[in-house]
Parts: sequence; structure tokens; C-alpha cells
Amino acid sequence: MDRHTVRAAIARFLAEDVAGGDITSESIFSPDQLGTALFRAKQPMVAAGMEQVAAEVFFAQNPAIELLGAAPDGLRTEVGSELLRVRGPVLDLLKAERVALNLVQRLSGIATLTARYVEAVAACGPPPPRVVDTRKTTPGLRIFEKYAVRVGGGHNHRFTLADGVLVKDNHISECGSIAEAVRRVRARAPHTLRIEVEAESLDQVRDCLECGVDLILLDNMDPATLGQAVEIARGRALLEASGGVTLETVREIAGTGVDFISVGRLTHSAPACDISMRFV
Amino acid sequence: MDRHTVRAAIARFLAEDVAGGDITSESIFSPDQLGTALFRAKQPMVAAGMEQVAAEVFFAQNPAIELLGAAPDGLRTEVGSELLRVRGPVLDLLKAERVALNLVQRLSGIATLTARYVEAVAACGPPPPRVVDTRKTTPGLRIFEKYAVRVGGGHNHRFTLADGVLVKDNHISECGSIAEAVRRVRARAPHTLRIEVEAESLDQVRDCLECGVDLILLDNMDPATLGQAVEIARGRALLEASGGVTLETVREIAGTGVDFISVGRLTHSAPACDISMRFV
Amino acid sequence: MDRHTVRAAIARFLAEDVAGGDITSESIFSPDQLGTALFRAKQPMVAAGMEQVAAEVFFAQNPAIELLGAAPDGLRTEVGSELLRVRGPVLDLLKAERVALNLVQRLSGIATLTARYVEAVAACGPPPPRVVDTRKTTPGLRIFEKYAVRVGGGHNHRFTLADGVLVKDNHISECGSIAEAVRRVRARAPHTLRIEVEAESLDQVRDCLECGVDLILLDNMDPATLGQAVEIARGRALLEASGGVTLETVREIAGTGVDFISVGRLTHSAPACDISMRFV
Amino acid sequence: MDRHTVRAAIARFLAEDVAGGDITSESIFSPDQLGTALFRAKQPMVAAGMEQVAAEVFFAQNPAIELLGAAPDGLRTEVGSELLRVRGPVLDLLKAERVALNLVQRLSGIATLTARYVEAVAACGPPPPRVVDTRKTTPGLRIFEKYAVRVGGGHNHRFTLADGVLVKDNHISECGSIAEAVRRVRARAPHTLRIEVEAESLDQVRDCLECGVDLILLDNMDPATLGQAVEIARGRALLEASGGVTLETVREIAGTGVDFISVGRLTHSAPACDISMRFV
Amino acid sequence: MDRHTVRAAIARFLAEDVAGGDITSESIFSPDQLGTALFRAKQPMVAAGMEQVAAEVFFAQNPAIELLGAAPDGLRTEVGSELLRVRGPVLDLLKAERVALNLVQRLSGIATLTARYVEAVAACGPPPPRVVDTRKTTPGLRIFEKYAVRVGGGHNHRFTLADGVLVKDNHISECGSIAEAVRRVRARAPHTLRIEVEAESLDQVRDCLECGVDLILLDNMDPATLGQAVEIARGRALLEASGGVTLETVREIAGTGVDFISVGRLTHSAPACDISMRFV
Amino acid sequence: MDRHTVRAAIARFLAEDVAGGDITSESIFSPDQLGTALFRAKQPMVAAGMEQVAAEVFFAQNPAIELLGAAPDGLRTEVGSELLRVRGPVLDLLKAERVALNLVQRLSGIATLTARYVEAVAACGPPPPRVVDTRKTTPGLRIFEKYAVRVGGGHNHRFTLADGVLVKDNHISECGSIAEAVRRVRARAPHTLRIEVEAESLDQVRDCLECGVDLILLDNMDPATLGQAVEIARGRALLEASGGVTLETVREIAGTGVDFISVGRLTHSAPACDISMRFV
Repeated sequence: MDRHTVRAAIARFLAEDVAGGDITSESIFSPDQLGTALFRAKQPMVAAGMEQVAAEVFFAQNPAIELLGAAPDGLRTEVGSELLRVRGPVLDLLKAERVALNLVQRLSGIATLTARYVEAVAACGPPPPRVVDTRKTTPGLRIFEKYAVRVGGGHNHRFTLADGVLVKDNHISECGSIAEAVRRVRARAPHTLRIEVEAESLDQVRDCLECGVDLILLDNMDPATLGQAVEIARGRALLEASGGVTLETVREIAGTGVDFISVGRLTHSAPACDISMRFV
Repeated sequence: MDRHTVRAAIARFLAEDVAGGDITSESIFSPDQLGTALFRAKQPMVAAGMEQVAAEVFFAQNPAIELLGAAPDGLRTEVGSELLRVRGPVLDLLKAERVALNLVQRLSGIATLTARYVEAVAACGPPPPRVVDTRKTTPGLRIFEKYAVRVGGGHNHRFTLADGVLVKDNHISECGSIAEAVRRVRARAPHTLRIEVEAESLDQVRDCLECGVDLILLDNMDPATLGQAVEIARGRALLEASGGVTLETVREIAGTGVDFISVGRLTHSAPACDISMRFV
Repeated sequence: MDRHTVRAAIARFLAEDVAGGDITSESIFSPDQLGTALFRAKQPMVAAGMEQVAAEVFFAQNPAIELLGAAPDGLRTEVGSELLRVRGPVLDLLKAERVALNLVQRLSGIATLTARYVEAVAACGPPPPRVVDTRKTTPGLRIFEKYAVRVGGGHNHRFTLADGVLVKDNHISECGSIAEAVRRVRARAPHTLRIEVEAESLDQVRDCLECGVDLILLDNMDPATLGQAVEIARGRALLEASGGVTLETVREIAGTGVDFISVGRLTHSAPACDISMRFV
Repeated sequence: MDRHTVRAAIARFLAEDVAGGDITSESIFSPDQLGTALFRAKQPMVAAGMEQVAAEVFFAQNPAIELLGAAPDGLRTEVGSELLRVRGPVLDLLKAERVALNLVQRLSGIATLTARYVEAVAACGPPPPRVVDTRKTTPGLRIFEKYAVRVGGGHNHRFTLADGVLVKDNHISECGSIAEAVRRVRARAPHTLRIEVEAESLDQVRDCLECGVDLILLDNMDPATLGQAVEIARGRALLEASGGVTLETVREIAGTGVDFISVGRLTHSAPACDISMRFV
Repeated sequence: MDRHTVRAAIARFLAEDVAGGDITSESIFSPDQLGTALFRAKQPMVAAGMEQVAAEVFFAQNPAIELLGAAPDGLRTEVGSELLRVRGPVLDLLKAERVALNLVQRLSGIATLTARYVEAVAACGPPPPRVVDTRKTTPGLRIFEKYAVRVGGGHNHRFTLADGVLVKDNHISECGSIAEAVRRVRARAPHTLRIEVEAESLDQVRDCLECGVDLILLDNMDPATLGQAVEIARGRALLEASGGVTLETVREIAGTGVDFISVGRLTHSAPACDISMRFV
Repeated sequence: MDRHTVRAAIARFLAEDVAGGDITSESIFSPDQLGTALFRAKQPMVAAGMEQVAAEVFFAQNPAIELLGAAPDGLRTEVGSELLRVRGPVLDLLKAERVALNLVQRLSGIATLTARYVEAVAACGPPPPRVVDTRKTTPGLRIFEKYAVRVGGGHNHRFTLADGVLVKDNHISECGSIAEAVRRVRARAPHTLRIEVEAESLDQVRDCLECGVDLILLDNMDPATLGQAVEIARGRALLEASGGVTLETVREIAGTGVDFISVGRLTHSAPACDISMRFV
């Protein structure tokens, strides 16, 4: 994550919650009263973003806040594990608390869920297929959520419509054939990008191979068909399975030999982890 | 939701996904090629934000896109129900697709979960307690998510630290007593706000009543204690139950007679609903 | 005032005055020439914002500027009293001078005028009614101006249309009755907000009491009518007098026993205080 | 006023007041209910900004709002004069009301005060001296306030530190002499700008003339001294009187024959005009 | 180019030039005076951006301005060719003139220079190598300049550090070998990106081929060495020649058989084309 | 250059290039690995912006980066001269490299070209005419480019349409005469600005003198006509020659005795200087 983008986003998030001030706390605490706050895990989780996100929220609220300790990304916690320790004006710790917690609860939720998918396929291969994310992220949080996927052991698919080529059904039907669609995209796309095409059938997989695409996205295929696609494409193109993948189905999909499995719910449906802040 | 805030947020969300352009689609579609796109529910849900959010995303992408139809907020859908119909340049429909879907999948997810909580307590009362949200919202999406809670039949707690007073344990311990904390807050807070105090025991409930607070937040109390609090406070203050409320426990809590039940997971852990876009 | 909001506003204010640079001073001073600048009161006033606003302007212009001293908020000054002492590059002190002065001259003007209103009603009660502000603030300066009101001993009314409920004549006439208007607002507003209704007659006061509103704004009533309203509403609702209140009339209004007196001219018509900056 | 700058500012002003929505009005009015609102003068005034500012606020709130009529800038009104008539959704008219009123009340206040100064000097000359403003404007409102000065018949001094050269006492003392200060500034400043120097004595006026400055600001001189300066500088430089000018003193100053009289209180201390909005 | 990004940039560019208004023109033209303005080429050029950039500047200044005609991108013009015809308020046409001209003069300059490079290599191949740009663009104008390269017949290299992988000498020396650098990058980069490695010798080319990189950037090699690299890498990786390429040397480089030639001066040193605006 | 404006621009420039992160370098370098980077001139040049621009880019990327040395503005370099030395995290040095280089390569290009013009006219006079820039700058870079012109020994014309008055042919034809155009502009423009009028013939020069304009822009006149204009206007107005000035023609133009020569190509067509960054 680029530090500038993180900080600009955090500034907006703080504005959303505390722009008008914290009437309750400002009535009670003087600005120079110091305290030390502690984040603790209230459930087992894969911690994500304690230093790079939560601490940055506190720094953004008040640069005088000190970071005394942070769980490393990817740490497997117990109930009660300490995740973050910051010291500074109580008033600022309270103002930043909710934004910091909202972020790391979500990010740890994503890392935790991703880790479960990665573990589910770890026995396949070697190498096991990569578990990758999608563009089904929360608007405004994409770099945070894709970061959490990496913390959980997953990998990233393209970040925006501009840094990856993915030819889908609408593009193909407009062009009349995969070959024509690929031809048009190749004529325009930077040569630094691989060409990925979505295939909905084995015939389309063959069409993709014929025009030399780098990557084929196998859309909503059952494991048997995935396996056949692997047979057909072996050594000629990389394969990505996609569509409705769950923790229940991911291992069987991985067993077919695909190279990547993309999972929308890593980011759109991961439940938040429970983390609390207390003063010590 | 204020239209200005919605539009400013949507502009950021589009920038996050399509600022650099859509290399694939721009290679294939000319800017003046028109099409009609349809959103359909792929699961039963309470629809939220089709006109006020998804359509605005398309308008933001290109003001020439026309809205041909939108499911009203709160509609209970079947699998396959039509949710939105927009017509305009295919290129712009494709560029805005993912942001629009990411938003309404999340908002419908929140509305759907909220509706389940509201239904779970509907038989209590009358009137049944209000199901209310918290500040545990996704950073950057608060007005959207609080709107989705209302679509689902829930109500909103404060939006920011500046438009509600909530005296919590840290405030009380700093002041030495609830009475002193309330005195300080009253001296400073606008008279347009109610004073809410968090109580962790029945003794604290009594302290609150003695200093005439308007609202008492009963933090993590079991149903029996909640019932006693209701007995003690009846007619003297409004009561809000809070802390770890689930669909399994909400009905029993509602049965104790509290006025409000606040539920963090309405916003932090609602799974996204599945919605697809297709051209017709 | 939240520090983030203050800083973002100050950045805009500096851009308005010095974005293109200070051609005169840049021709004459080298960037590393140091000096000490002093703000002095050129009239008796209630000082406001020296540390929290003026010093922040200098810090924003150049973080290397040091604050050597600042009059505390609320200080009653003589002609010639020192208000602020900052040290740093002369070039930056000169660039920030006008923005800093424009702000604290206005804020001190508001604090000074507010203090006169507060003093005018101090003998009423006890407790005397609160002197409160309105939304008639300078666009872009609301948090600053409401802060200055507090410095002068006044209190704040709602900050925005979203953090207070005020049912006015247009709302009532749309609904047909106060009761219906209140019913609609109650169904929608967060329970953390009090319901305030504007009454233009004693009959409307009675209507308000019947539907249990928390606050009644008595609009443009003469002192005699205000007194009757106090009689009617005693113990059942809080009362706020509003409309054309001046230093000449405020004491008599206070004598009627209302709880709050809101005064638009605190913010929209306070003359600026005269403050000068000199190098020492 | 450039339309872009006006609109960007108005967007911020609306955000300040209504970003979170208007809870009261949204509870009561449906978004499609139409109404016509009228601004009326509640005092005699010089109207300023009805079409270029107030109407723009309503357009910014909702582009569907129609302007049915607006008082021209500079109109002298009676009590009760109609100033603006707009038609559109009641909800949007109510949301934009306060920002629009706050702006035009202030701008009309400035125009009204400026007009009084201009009238006070009208009999001098010919031509009478120009009444000009200063940089003592409200932070964030400079282009609006300088516009209002022009509406009132006044003229503008420089807008920012970058579009005018004004050599003041600090610059002179740094350089050792007016001549050296002017030399340095001339070497750097664009040739499109006049060189103005502040003189605190007749000797300094003579120094200015010797080095050929275009404009001399006569700082805090009494009328007799001003008259002598006019004698000395006649035909060799333009003269601007400045410092503590009031409606009581402005005519005598004008009688000395200076070319410009700059008045800080035009913008920093003009009381707001009283304007109301009603639905018809 | 994404329309949103273009518009946001244009708004900033207009603010840079006309935020404070056009004092000259505003003194002379009334806002409702209409005129028709014409852009004409004052030299032969490859036109770029007339409709997508210049017209957008005018629309941004005033949405009421009409586009009556625009040269298509890529048009080869004579001296005197008409490039753009717009009609609207003269005042707005004058305010937008300079920004519009500054942009299309630069973009046409880039397109014109690119076309010369493309023509220089057209006889090589088939297919001839692609002429591609670099990240040596004007800060703030990248999407515009990369668009102009495409208009001129060139192609784009990566847009940002995030949408292309390019392993350079610093990366290699940190890792100890190309193999290790590629291994680390592969473990982290999205699978949608090709891996490009910079080679400064034929040995490094061989190292690249051994670890299967997709693209090799041949840095500052002479034509003979480039030819050897082509021999070595044929069919195993794509090759990009880079470093100090000029119109004099590009044809010989193309003759070596490389796939891409990247040219920094397309964007960092293209002289502006001469275009004038006149009213008709 | 005002530091605030510089920093805000740099933040945007970095966002354009590195917002999504540097995938390659982040794969290879750890955030705490330190290095020292050196900028070197690869051609003779007039260095511009090393400390005030390039170093600021590195500080913006990471405030922990230290500046160890910077060539002063205006330094004449040899091939190989050291221009900048910075130390900090390698990862941040690499991320900021391209933006910093793109800026100083362009600024040094402008300073170098300006210096050649200034040298070409140095023998004229005394004093020699000033070489001044125009508004033909790169959108978004005006303050940087006008700064580079000053570094090269040139001077600035107006920065925006609001800080200079320039009456051109369109204004004159609208008004019917130069006299009327000047009258209208004088009535409106701040008295701090000189009035400049564009003349296309000696008759127009005489018209300008008759109405007492301060500055006359002589548009596209040949040297003989310029000389006659100098004769006519001597001592009555300042003269600026403009239009198609090149290094070949500038000396002859200077010899005519005009006061200023404005040159668009200083900013719109200066080729970038070649500068490299290496680690040491």
C-alpha cells in the first residue's frame, strides 16, 4: 500500500466520524491528558493492518501519538492477544478509536477468511493454486482490502480496469469471436499486460488457445469441466477458476490443477473480527 | 442521504476503479454504441439503493445514461427479480458496472440483515423496540450504510461523535462519577441533543436516573438484568440494549421491554447479496 | 473544534491569500531570515482563537514557526495587551499575517459580543438562561464561529441540519398539525436527538406540550407572551426564545424564565476587533 | 467572479450545513413535492448577489430548481421588496435556504455599507476618490466580498499577495531605505503590476516620488498631512489614504484630493442585512 | 482517457488560469454576448485532442458552449486547416482560450512527433516494431500525453508503477541475480501483469530467458548487440529497445527485429504545435 | 513559489505515478533499507529546482528522506555535474525518482533556454530589455515554469487573467476604439495593475499613448516598425515586443530599444534536459 494513498483515505475516514468534534469526550478530557490504549483480539484471527493502518489512524489524528507495539501482519491470535499499544492524549485516542477499529476489524476479517481458503488448498499441487481476489471490494477500500488478502496468504487480481485485460462475454459477442476480440485488445493494450479471456465452455477454451491468450478465466465450470480444461490447456495458457467459489468447494476446484482460483467473497462478505480497545 | 455527499463519494469510487480507463472495453466498443443493462437478484433479498445509489453511479459515469426502471427501496425480491434497468453507451455501462454492483450488493445485504432483526422483534411490544445501528460502519460508507439500515426497517443511532452524546466507562472513570460526567457534558453540549450514558450495572442505571439522563445504554447485560433495568427506569429514561446482539438473542432481549436494541453487525458483518448485470 | 477540520480550512484560507506567493516580501526577505512577531489588542476585547487558530495558521504556513506565547481563550484584554508571540522566518510570518489576523479579529469580535449578551442576562435565574447561537454563521466558518461563541460564554445550537430536529412553520403546515409533524419526525430521527418545535402562539405551545416535544422554540414573542409560555410549559418542556434579540432586549427576555435565548447577530453581525501585528 | 470558483465554494458551504441531510424536512416532505420560495428584504438595503450567488446555491442543491426572478445587483430596496423567486422541490429549497440567506445577507450588508461610503464622497472631486477595499476579508469569502464592494459602487484593491506590490514598513526597514526596497521589488515583480509603497510621513512621500513609485499609500495621516501629501505628489504619483477610515471621517479625507481611500471595515465589520425566505 | 479524470484535470487547469476572473474581458463583454471561435493550424501537424480535450475545456468553462465542429484525432493538417469551431458567450470563450490552446498545442506536438517515429519504422517488419512511450511524461498530464502518443500511431508502456513490472539494475543488484529478482516479483505481482526485466548485456538477456521472463528491455545497446539479442531471444521473449532513441537512429534499431522501441522524447521534448484562435 | 502550492501539486504528481504502489520495488526492497541517490547532469545546462522542487518530491514521498546537497538554482553545469544528493529508504527514493526527474528535467530545460535568450540580448541597452514569459505554460505547472524562467534570468509576465490587464484585438473591436476599451477597463480594474494594450500598427501605438496606457504590447511587428514605435513612445509608455520571437531574431528585436520581449517558447517548447539518478 502506498503511504500517500493510505493517509489521504484515513483523513477522509476521520472526517466522516469526528469532523465536528467529539462532544462527549471534549466535555470531559483536557487536551493534554495522556493515556495508553490497547487493542485486544476477542476471537482467534489473522491480524492485519495493526501497524500500517490502525497506527496510521492514530498518527493522523495526532502526530504526537506514539506506537508502543503492534502485532505483525499475519499473526495468528488467541482470544485476548494484544494487537496494538499506543500512547498519547486520551482525547485523540478516543476520537480515532472507532475509525481504527472499524478498519482493522474488517481487514483482519478478510485476512482470516483468505487464510482459510489458502489452507484449504495447501495440500494440492505443488504448487497449490493461488487464491486471488476480485474487483468485488468495498468502494473506497480497495487498496486496504487487497492488502488484507495478501496478509492472509492470497494474491491479487487486477486493481482497476486499467491494469489488466479481461475479455468477457459482452466483449466477445460484440466482436463475433474470441479471435477478433483478442485482436482488438492486443492492438490497443500496453504490452506490459497479459491478455486474459473469460471462457464459458471448453470450445471457448480452445478458441482462446488458438489465438494465444496468456490467461483463461474459466467461468462457473464444474470440477469435471475444469479438469478437462486443464488437460486441454496444459503448458499453453494459465488457468483461473472463478464463480461462486466457497470454502466447501475450493479444495475440489484446486484439485483440478488450475493455476488460480478467484474468490469474490474474500472481500465482499468476510465478517468483521472482534477487537476491543481499552485503556491501561 | 444528501445528494451532494452521495455524488462526491461516487466520484471517488469510480476514480478508484476506472480512472485510468477500461482498456479491454475501450478496445472493443465505440463510445456511441448503445445498450440496455439489467440488474437481477440472484437470491431473495430486501433491495436497497437501486435508484438512489446504483442509478447515480451510472449518471455519474455518463449523464446521458437513462434510468428505465428501479426496484423501490425495501422491495422483497425473488431469485430473478429485476432490480434496475438503465440504457446508454455500452462503454459507460460497463465502466460503471462494478462500482454500482459493489454498492447495492452491500446495501441490500445490510437491508436484508436488518429486516431479519426487525422481523425477529416485531411481535414484542407494542411498540416493539427499535433495531438501531452503531458507528461500526465501513469507513467512507457511513451515510450509505445507515440509509440501508433504514431501508431494512431499522433506525439510526448517532451519525458522528458530534451529533450525539454518549458517556462511556472511560468518561465516567475520568470524572469519578456518572453525576460529574453528566454535569460536564451538560455544560457543553448543545441543548438539542439528548444525554445518553452507558451503564454496566443496575447501580449505574440508578445513578443515571438520579441525574436525569435522557437515555441509558445497557451494555452487555443478560436478559434478566435488562428486565430489572426496565423495571427500575420505567417512565424515567429510555433504554437501549447493546453488545453482542445476534439473530438468536435479539428476540429475548426485545422481550425485556427495552426501547432500543443496537446491533453492530448490521453494518460490519452483513454478507453481500448476489446481484448480476446483463445486457438485453 | 476538531484539529483536522481546522487545518483543512486554514490551508484553504492561506491558498486564497498567498497561493501565488507574496511578490513584495519575496523580493526583499531571504527565506532563512528570522523574526519575532507580536499580536496586540488595539481595543478591549474577549480574546478568542490565539492558540487554536492564529498559531495554527502560522504552523500551516511553516511548521518551523514557534509559538512563544498566546493569550488564553476568554481573556479580557486592555488596549495594548499582548495576544500572541511567534518566531520564525520573517517571510512566512508576513505571508500568514493577514489570514491569522482576519480570523482572530472576527472570532474575538464574536466572543466579545457574546460576552456582552451573557453578562446582560447573568443576573437572571438562577440559572440564567443560556445565550445560544444559530446557523446564521459565515459560510465556511461555522466551527470557528461556534467556537468563538463558547469562548464568549455562550452555548451552541445545532451545527447542521443533521444534528438537531427543528420543526418549523413550513413543516407544520405541510402536515396539517404539530402532532402529525412530530409523529413523522419521531418515526425517522435518531433517538439521540431531542425534538424541537417552533411555536408562534400559545396555542401552538400547548399543542407542542400535548405531543410531548422536548424543546419549544418561541418565535418572535413579546416578553409578556414569553412569560405566559413559561407558565404553561413549566416542567414539561424546555423553552427557547428567538427572533430579533438585541442587547437592549435580551435582559427582559431573560427575565421571563426561558431556558435559552438564541441570537443570530452573535455570528452574522459582530464587528471585528482591532488587532495589530508588529515585529519586535 | 469566476463561475467555477463560486460553484466550488458553494459546494463546500452546502456540505458544511447539509452534508448529513435535513432530518426534519426529510421526515416530512417527499422529494418530489414542489414549491415556490421568495426572498424579501426586511430593511432598506443595496441588494447584492441574488442571481449570481443565491440562485447558484439553489442550483447547486438541485439543478432542477428554476429561477423565476432576481433583484439586479445594486438595487436599492424598501422593506418588503422582493429579492429572489425560485421554484423547485420544497425539500431542496429548505436545505439550501440557510446557506443562500447567510451569503446574500452578508453580501448585501457589504454593498450597503460601501454605498454609504461612496455617497459620502460623491460631492468631492471631480472625480471623487475611489472607495476601495482591503485584504481584510472573511477567510474563504474574498471573491464574494470584493464583488459586493463593487456592487456597492466601490473598487477593489489587490486580491492576493501575488497580484499587487505593496512595500510596507517591515520591507523598508529591512532594506534600509525606500529606494533600496523599490529597487529590489522592481527587479523581481512582473512589469504588469504597479509599485505601491506605504508612507508614514511626508519625508517618505518625497522618497517615494524620488524613486518613481506609481502609487503611495498614506498610512494613518490626518487630513492636513494628507493635503500636504497631495500638494507634494500632484501629477507624479497616485495617492491612497488608508487607516481607520469611518463614515464620519471619510468625507474630510476625500476633500484632501487623494485618489483612493481604502476601508477595511467595508468587509470586516459590515452588519448583515435582514432577508427572509417564505413559501408562496 | 476516462472522462472523469479528464474533467477533473481540466477544472484544475482552468482554476490555475482564470480562478480570479478575466479582469480585462469582464470589463468589456457582457456575459450574454455570443460569438463563434475557430482554432486553425498555423503549421502542418497531426491534430490531437480537439474534441476530447479542447472542446471539454470550453464545456467546463460553460456548459452552454456548443461544439460546431472538430478535427478528428490523427488528421494531418495543412497550414490554415480548421481544427475546432465552438459557439457560446464570448466572455467564456476568451476565458477558456489559453487553457484549451495550451493543451492541444502540446498534444498535437506529441502526436506529430510520434507519427514521425512511426513512419520512420514503417518499412521494417512486418510487423514493424511498436513505438512506445515511457513514464517520462509531464507531471499531471500523463493520461493526456499517453493518449496523444496513441493518436500519433504509437503505443503505451505502463501508466504507473503499479500496472507493469519492470526489474531494473537496482533491483537486480539488491537480489544478487536476475533469477532471484524475478522470483521475488513473481511471488507478489498480480498474475495479470507480464514480467519485464532490463538487460544491459547479452549475458543478462540469457539470464532473463532462463528464468522465463515475458519481456526484456534492452537498455542502451547498439544495433549490432540488439541484433544478437534478437537472435538469442527469438520466440522465447518479447524484446524492447530503449535508451536515447532519436529520429536519426530509430530506423536502424527497428531493423534489428526488436518488438518495441520506447522513446522518452515523445513526451518530454516534443515542441508544441502552433494553433491560433480567432472569432468569426 | 509558495511552498503550499508546490506541495499540493507534488502530492498530485506522486499520486499520478505511484498511488497504487511500485509493485516491482515493493517485491524486492524492505521498507527500512537505506540508500543514497545522486542526480547528475548528462549535458551542460542551467540547473533549476533541485532544492525547491526535486528535494520536495522526495520529502513528500517520505519525510524521513534527508537532503545531503543540491545544486543552487542557476548553476551552469558540465556533463557529469552532481545536482542532488538525497539519503533515505531505497524504496521511497525509487518511488519518487521519476516524478522528481520529470520535473527538474523540464525546469532545467526552461531555465537553460531562457538563459540563452537572456544572453542573446545582454549586449543591448543598457539596460537590456527583459526577456519575459507568457501564459503559454503547461497546464498545472505554471508556477513551476515561471519560476524556471526567473532562474534562467528571465522575468514573468502576468500569472493569470486576474493579475494583469491586457487589452487585445477582440476587446478593441468590441468597444469600437482603444480609448473606449481602456476607459471600460480602467473603470473596473484594481488600481494596483498597469493597463497594457496590444497594438498591431503604429496608429494603434499613437492611440494607446493618447489615452495614457502604461504598457503597449507590440504584436508581430518587424524590427523596423518596432524601432519606429520606440521613437513614438519614448518616455510615454513601456513597450513589449511579442510574437514568434526566436533565438535567431531576438537580438535584432532587442536592438530596437523595446523594454520587454515576451517569448512563448520559453515554456511551451523547451526540450527537457537529460538528468540521471544513480545510487552510490
